Amino acid sequence: MERKEFRDLATPAEARAAIDSLSLEGGLERVSLEDARGRVLAARLDAELDVPGFDRASLDGYALRARDTFGADEADPARLEVVGEVHAGEEPDVAVEEGQAVEISTGAVMPDGADAMVPVERTDTDADGSEVLVRTSVAPGDNVMFAGADVAAGERALGPGTQVTPRDIGLLSALGIDEIPVRAPPTVGIVSTGDELVRPGEDLHSDRGEIYDVNSYTIAAGVEDAGGEAVLYPHAGDEQDEMERILREAAEECDLVLSSGSTSASAVDVIYRVIEEQGELLLHGVSVKPGKPMLVGRLQNSAYVGLPGYPVSAMMVFRTFVAPAIREAAGVPEPRAATVAGTMAREERYEEGRMRLMPVGLIEDSNGETLVYPVDKGSGATTSLAEADGVVEVGPETDYLEEGESVTVRLFSPDVRPPTLLGVGEDDPTLNRLLDGLENPRYLSVGTRPGLRRLREGVPDVAIAAGPLDREIRAATAAESERASGRAIDAEELGRWDHEWGLITRAGNPREVEGLADLIERDLRFVNRTSDSGLRSSLESALESVAADRDASARDLRESIDGFDLGLRAHESPARKVIAGEADVALGLRETADRLDLGFVPVDEQPVRALANPDRTSKESVRELAAALEAEFGTEADD
Amino acid sequence: MERKEFRDLATPAEARAAIDSLSLEGGLERVSLEDARGRVLAARLDAELDVPGFDRASLDGYALRARDTFGADEADPARLEVVGEVHAGEEPDVAVEEGQAVEISTGAVMPDGADAMVPVERTDTDADGSEVLVRTSVAPGDNVMFAGADVAAGERALGPGTQVTPRDIGLLSALGIDEIPVRAPPTVGIVSTGDELVRPGEDLHSDRGEIYDVNSYTIAAGVEDAGGEAVLYPHAGDEQDEMERILREAAEECDLVLSSGSTSASAVDVIYRVIEEQGELLLHGVSVKPGKPMLVGRLQNSAYVGLPGYPVSAMMVFRTFVAPAIREAAGVPEPRAATVAGTMAREERYEEGRMRLMPVGLIEDSNGETLVYPVDKGSGATTSLAEADGVVEVGPETDYLEEGESVTVRLFSPDVRPPTLLGVGEDDPTLNRLLDGLENPRYLSVGTRPGLRRLREGVPDVAIAAGPLDREIRAATAAESERASGRAIDAEELGRWDHEWGLITRAGNPREVEGLADLIERDLRFVNRTSDSGLRSSLESALESVAADRDASARDLRESIDGFDLGLRAHESPARKVIAGEADVALGLRETADRLDLGFVPVDEQPVRALANPDRTSKESVRELAAALEAEFGTEADD
Repeated sequence: MERKEFRDLATPAEARAAIDSLSLEGGLERVSLEDARGRVLAARLDAELDVPGFDRASLDGYALRARDTFGADEADPARLEVVGEVHAGEEPDVAVEEGQAVEISTGAVMPDGADAMVPVERTDTDADGSEVLVRTSVAPGDNVMFAGADVAAGERALGPGTQVTPRDIGLLSALGIDEIPVRAPPTVGIVSTGDELVRPGEDLHSDRGEIYDVNSYTIAAGVEDAGGEAVLYPHAGDEQDEMERILREAAEECDLVLSSGSTSASAVDVIYRVIEEQGELLLHGVSVKPGKPMLVGRLQNSAYVGLPGYPVSAMMVFRTFVAPAIREAAGVPEPRAATVAGTMAREERYEEGRMRLMPVGLIEDSNGETLVYPVDKGSGATTSLAEADGVVEVGPETDYLEEGESVTVRLFSPDVRPPTLLGVGEDDPTLNRLLDGLENPRYLSVGTRPGLRRLREGVPDVAIAAGPLDREIRAATAAESERASGRAIDAEELGRWDHEWGLITRAGNPREVEGLADLIERDLRFVNRTSDSGLRSSLESALESVAADRDASARDLRESIDGFDLGLRAHESPARKVIAGEADVALGLRETADRLDLGFVPVDEQPVRALANPDRTSKESVRELAAALEAEFGTEADD
Repeated sequence: MERKEFRDLATPAEARAAIDSLSLEGGLERVSLEDARGRVLAARLDAELDVPGFDRASLDGYALRARDTFGADEADPARLEVVGEVHAGEEPDVAVEEGQAVEISTGAVMPDGADAMVPVERTDTDADGSEVLVRTSVAPGDNVMFAGADVAAGERALGPGTQVTPRDIGLLSALGIDEIPVRAPPTVGIVSTGDELVRPGEDLHSDRGEIYDVNSYTIAAGVEDAGGEAVLYPHAGDEQDEMERILREAAEECDLVLSSGSTSASAVDVIYRVIEEQGELLLHGVSVKPGKPMLVGRLQNSAYVGLPGYPVSAMMVFRTFVAPAIREAAGVPEPRAATVAGTMAREERYEEGRMRLMPVGLIEDSNGETLVYPVDKGSGATTSLAEADGVVEVGPETDYLEEGESVTVRLFSPDVRPPTLLGVGEDDPTLNRLLDGLENPRYLSVGTRPGLRRLREGVPDVAIAAGPLDREIRAATAAESERASGRAIDAEELGRWDHEWGLITRAGNPREVEGLADLIERDLRFVNRTSDSGLRSSLESALESVAADRDASARDLRESIDGFDLGLRAHESPARKVIAGEADVALGLRETADRLDLGFVPVDEQPVRALANPDRTSKESVRELAAALEAEFGTEADD
């Protein structure tokens, strides 16, 4: 088979049709009632018995012949002889004749001869219990539940395809059914290939480009969400024979095989060859972004879908094309109410002519209206879906979505709760701790400057800004001056705290670093934060002071520091380079140095400010964050 | 402790507060990534490493120094020496100097010295691959994903309380985390008491009033729906010592003990005594219907709730008061979008002054509007919840709900799908089979006459009427003439079929029954259908013919048949009495006799008609039923 190029991409509808043409069904199995919840009945179940199985007293009282009470009332009660009693779970050992009654408990079998009962509250007994006075009249059948009144033998109880709820379990229990035939979940084998992949929990060698395998567990969880049973196969690496062996084994054992692509050409070649020899390729490439490199076919007696290698692409393709087919085979209904309407929080351009599956995050504005913003860390990012709530499908003819445009978001599941609070900005240890006390917050550690920009664009509820604020606002405003015209940063300060910052060294400070002068003058390998970070601004501002003192240029000082341009994004990352032995000195906070048992040379304090979007100050989550800050730092925020 | 009467009933709010005051939390546990889906994180997880862990090529192409491409374009490409190659999963063994490039695969480690890469599509190589022509210029960082760009070490990854989704599993995988701390589900011990209860699957002795235990498995399934772990304890019966032992054992082992009441006073006494000795009773009796007899307290170190004994009451109380507390302890969010708005399909009176939890069924009219009707088979019914979709809470001050009044229905779960088709009427084997082919139908076997009445009231989509239709319609109209004023039955016939009916005997017809005359003249024990059934009407009509032939009164003939008044509701039930040896002859269909291997003496054929609500003939499910009937019986329906 020739290796096809993605020239004739299938439409999304053709891809769906190709997958629908495969059979994924998992057959039947029997499960006990205890394991029946959520399973899908494979056949109709009819009642094999009456419920109740006998004429049953509905109350505590007396079983009797209705005719004997005719005309009885409070003034003129009927007097009957009490000839016995029946309790629940007992066979009556007495029959009721004319003029007689039997004491009976709720749920007990009505004795022969009785056709009605009177509740105890409408009766009196004489001292020795041998007679009962009935102060009301009843009709035949009163207060009796007849055999089969609830369910009658032979009645249709549950239809095929019923997904068993606790209420259905009640019905099955009542019918005495302790095992039911259900659809077996389709088994889905997950094969991942690629020499660079390492299973979570194992050691990772980043120096040779290893990364953790994201797709296997993520797709497995998606399979189980959709009602399938996931089977993880061992890593195939890029060795062809081994890869072929694993593919064939998975095809033999499973109803569907999913591979997620090694990026190497050899892996794709093996898959092509195995499909050619042992199956059929139905489709290669779909006009959708992300997800173009998708394969659909048959492998031996199993269905086969090849997912893209990038985790975000793999998951989007899985959700859009594969999960519905698994649900269908499992008999699990499509999730309901899994869409929400919202408006675009900002313009989004897109001009590729393919359908786009755009992961988005949601946030409510203070009127409770849902704002929608694209989540995209770039195609290689593995984790951006954890920051998204759902997907907007954008048609191939749509070039851009305007700010304020209405869109429909398909939530990742009906359980998805958009965050109560959306924060952006500096990665800060104090804030991280406070967020733990809030319900379902989301925080995007984009750095101080991008955080301020986003705050001005109006999407997040709060931004956390570290370092010299005026400088940051100036920078953020300047960088975005065109787009931001007319939108000054006009935020309300919710709280402020200080961090001692400085130079982090190995434990015990073996190189005897004393301050910035050592960085400038000595041959020390330094690791900085990115220029988006407030701490970097604090450092630059400190270097400017040194430069002024020395009558030197700040630029010269910066250039004299080995590694000044190597900026890392998160507050702990530089310190970790020191631990790894890749640097002598890192920019960081005392808090970080203490936590990681490293040396620390203080330089200065820097303020961190929590700033609220002025349109969101009345939002509950923003008030909760303000209260948490107040509790942590007292009323300083009001200074 | 004195046995309290239900004099001072707590309000629903007080009951909720009492349960909230108990601690149900299950502590912590660690689970592997494979078992993490849906679990609730017990602590914040921060990134312990950068993702990716190295500067990573985003595409296949050449790693190089951006400066070496400045000014290059299609017309004037830059020419660089190719000094090596790096694949994904390999450690680079070469560095890039000025004027050099390294061939690199997607996902591979950027070699030292390179600060950007060019995709292969923008390059040409010479024949021996020793040089590459770069036809574009790139900036530093282009097509490179820097270490930590996705997630940076030290960043807050997932907050405490996160319910783990497949996307979160992606993030955890990327961070190499293969085990996470989660909240242990609260363990809930389920104790059921009562001598009359038998576990499903075991033999049932209806003659001594045994019934299957409905509450244990139903409540267990409800506990698991709410995120708890259910533990079923063996049946306690009504023996006091054993009951006490089991209650104490459950309290020792579980976070919450639920008992569902034996109706016997002795069981309640034991529970009181154990709580008095080893705990505290917080509340007895709630002003809600169903559910008044509810207990809340502490038992040793466990929380305790006593549920009512009747399954419907037990489940309603569980859902309303207990499930939210289990969800809270499990950290599982309240289901969202679990309510729908609808209008009452008929008036419902209620004058008890307690809050009522009214189970309701839902059906869409042809405009897609949701109609709501109460589901109530009487307080002893065990199975009515399987016919309901949700609950309407009716306040104590509401005396009645008008037809057409808007109500809010809390669905039993967000997954609940109201039936696509609501049918009522005769229990019929042909229909039962056809229903299997429809998606999610609901059929209430109420009998022909009540089915016709309901059809006229306008709630169901279709009614199935058996027997002499005119007679049935006359009866249905007469019986309901006051309420139904102005509403004639004006139904559209969707299909019609015939059943041969007659007398069902033991296999081989040992009593040599030949026809109705034997029933009248001989001493045979007979079992009839209820007067709601069309088959009963057919029988009565046949007896009227016999009476006319003999010049006798039909009433005398009926009275001469032993068991004529013993009517059973479902079409198979009389035949089952014959199998059980409780009758010699049963009224029934040939189909039933054949299926159960019994003897059959034909009497006549009776027509069965599928009648559609005239307002629903355009509903998709009604059209599907009509098509199924057409496929089964041809075009007879159009006669």
